[in-house]
Amino acid sequence: MEKISYYSQENHGPYQVYNLGDFELEEGGIINDCQIAYSTFGKLNPRKDNAILITTWYSGTSKIMEQVYQGEGRAIDPAKYFIVIINQIGNGLSTSPHSAMDGLKGAKFPRVRISDDVRAQYRLLTELFGIESLALVVGGSMGAQQTWEWAVRYPDMVKRAVPIAGRARNTRHNFLFIETLKYALMSDPNWNEGNYTDSNLVSRGLKHHADLWSVMGFSIEFYKQELYKNLGFSSLEEFRVGFTQGYFLPMDPNNLLCMAWKWQKGDVSRITNGDLSAALGRIKSKVLILAIDGDMLYPPSDCEADQKLTPNSEMRIIHSYAGHLGLFGIEPSFSEQVDKYLKEILDTPIEKKISGKSFSLRN
Amino acid sequence: MEKISYYSQENHGPYQVYNLGDFELEEGGIINDCQIAYSTFGKLNPRKDNAILITTWYSGTSKIMEQVYQGEGRAIDPAKYFIVIINQIGNGLSTSPHSAMDGLKGAKFPRVRISDDVRAQYRLLTELFGIESLALVVGGSMGAQQTWEWAVRYPDMVKRAVPIAGRARNTRHNFLFIETLKYALMSDPNWNEGNYTDSNLVSRGLKHHADLWSVMGFSIEFYKQELYKNLGFSSLEEFRVGFTQGYFLPMDPNNLLCMAWKWQKGDVSRITNGDLSAALGRIKSKVLILAIDGDMLYPPSDCEADQKLTPNSEMRIIHSYAGHLGLFGIEPSFSEQVDKYLKEILDTPIEKKISGKSFSLRN
Repeated sequence: MEKISYYSQENHGPYQVYNLGDFELEEGGIINDCQIAYSTFGKLNPRKDNAILITTWYSGTSKIMEQVYQGEGRAIDPAKYFIVIINQIGNGLSTSPHSAMDGLKGAKFPRVRISDDVRAQYRLLTELFGIESLALVVGGSMGAQQTWEWAVRYPDMVKRAVPIAGRARNTRHNFLFIETLKYALMSDPNWNEGNYTDSNLVSRGLKHHADLWSVMGFSIEFYKQELYKNLGFSSLEEFRVGFTQGYFLPMDPNNLLCMAWKWQKGDVSRITNGDLSAALGRIKSKVLILAIDGDMLYPPSDCEADQKLTPNSEMRIIHSYAGHLGLFGIEPSFSEQVDKYLKEILDTPIEKKISGKSFSLRN
Repeated sequence: MEKISYYSQENHGPYQVYNLGDFELEEGGIINDCQIAYSTFGKLNPRKDNAILITTWYSGTSKIMEQVYQGEGRAIDPAKYFIVIINQIGNGLSTSPHSAMDGLKGAKFPRVRISDDVRAQYRLLTELFGIESLALVVGGSMGAQQTWEWAVRYPDMVKRAVPIAGRARNTRHNFLFIETLKYALMSDPNWNEGNYTDSNLVSRGLKHHADLWSVMGFSIEFYKQELYKNLGFSSLEEFRVGFTQGYFLPMDPNNLLCMAWKWQKGDVSRITNGDLSAALGRIKSKVLILAIDGDMLYPPSDCEADQKLTPNSEMRIIHSYAGHLGLFGIEPSFSEQVDKYLKEILDTPIEKKISGKSFSLRN
């Protein structure tokens, strides 16, 4: 049972689990005994206003976010902040198709939306920690979708929001890309409508799915300059097989499909009947949009549209040849740039108005 | 037999056929009775120096090139030039897997290279028409690969070369993209190692192959602005199914794979043992590289590399939201821009040096 060991504490822990009980989904299903996996770093201060939420991207878990986005001496420093990294539903650590109870298992797993994740995360933070203010919400790609959803859905709770390489409403182009990802998995001869007996049998589909990421996840320049050699791969083929295929192969296809559907349909404007301007207009957080210049999924020219509709927002461009998957922190300069911008926004005092008076709130 | 009717004179004609006899390929195979399909417009002048060669791209035939790249009053005007459009081997009109004789049919078809096409085209032009000078060679994408190969292989014959949205040596990134195209076709449950009984049976693979083109062939901005509505498609799904899938569905998968392999391996530096600078240094033509700004396959930043290595070359950027498949002339402004640049280079006299004297040659 290689899959179980992949989504294990050994690989992705230590992480804890919070049980939401029966969790109702926006699409109408219920996840019984819904477990949300999370990890924390640092301490919550007595005023409970130093909490930072980090969200997860497609296929990512709390582990990569722990490794790449926080640490001592970093902008998100556990010496200063209480950092909570919450795994999205379907990512293999929180309740997911591969681990769900019998009636919900595998292909039977219900449709989950970004907004379900954000509501689950809200419950975890408020019920478990009594957190009612977040100094920052930050995440990349699907994590950016959750960040946007947080800022729109809980405008008074989120003081700062940093969506990296992701959109408030997913794009048509990305919708098509995800269609090809889904097809890649479902075209495997052993797919069996999602009722495969062992996800290893779906390796052809998983490899093709990984190849699609090799095309869209990096950048033309990344390959032109053979930057995969910096990662220890001596050839294009070694990189393709050893890095991208190697990354996705141990994952569960139904888990990936759960996230793929959610990603595809991500749209903060569902709360305002499809009016994106109205949805983003609800935001009270200070928003800093980070876009990656080599990103073939969400290039800066694309992310600009959200910035224009969001009050009190700014945008910065991160230079990365690695493209969208620069999010993995493949280049040291990526983390340096992210830290610089995170420090900038974290050091910006937030104006809080109470009874007509305004005062500055540090965290 | 729908396929036969797709690759027919009704759809793609009128075209003529030149028989090369037994044609030896660089990879070692032989195409017996090799037929090269071509169409011509205008008249060859007595000096035989007004000929223009137009090459074809992946899946394209002489018909689309006739419709989009030449015409009365256009830069490439049949009133002035003798225009020869030659179909690449494997495209369905020239000898191809679907139409080859028994021993070479379907999956048995041998590997063909861009250089094989260019040698075949050279024979056609010299043997059939006695042409020894080309006023211009022009083509897009794989047609640009042939254009580059022409300029490198026959430097004295090609006076002007205009490769559009294509590279002299294919890129690593594009190699990976084509891997996904190939897999898409070969993963069809009815693929049967290329020995399908009817290409209609491979429709799942052909549709997925088309979807990959929907992602990479256009641009993010094209979808953001819903420019497919200008083509008469009211929704993204209608466009995806009606345009891109509809375009590829009647084609033969083995034909596409023949071209895919050729495209993937395109490299003018094979003639100089892999030294691209030396290969491009052989060129004597005036070269004008046209790159498309929205191109997700070969963006201008990528095409620049060829320009820097090519003597007597310049580059111009075509603005097109349609991206790589802007080559189809989807936007009227695309053809206007191409014509402007083609006119520019066609109106540039070519210096020809004979016995130390130089004089200007108009065509």
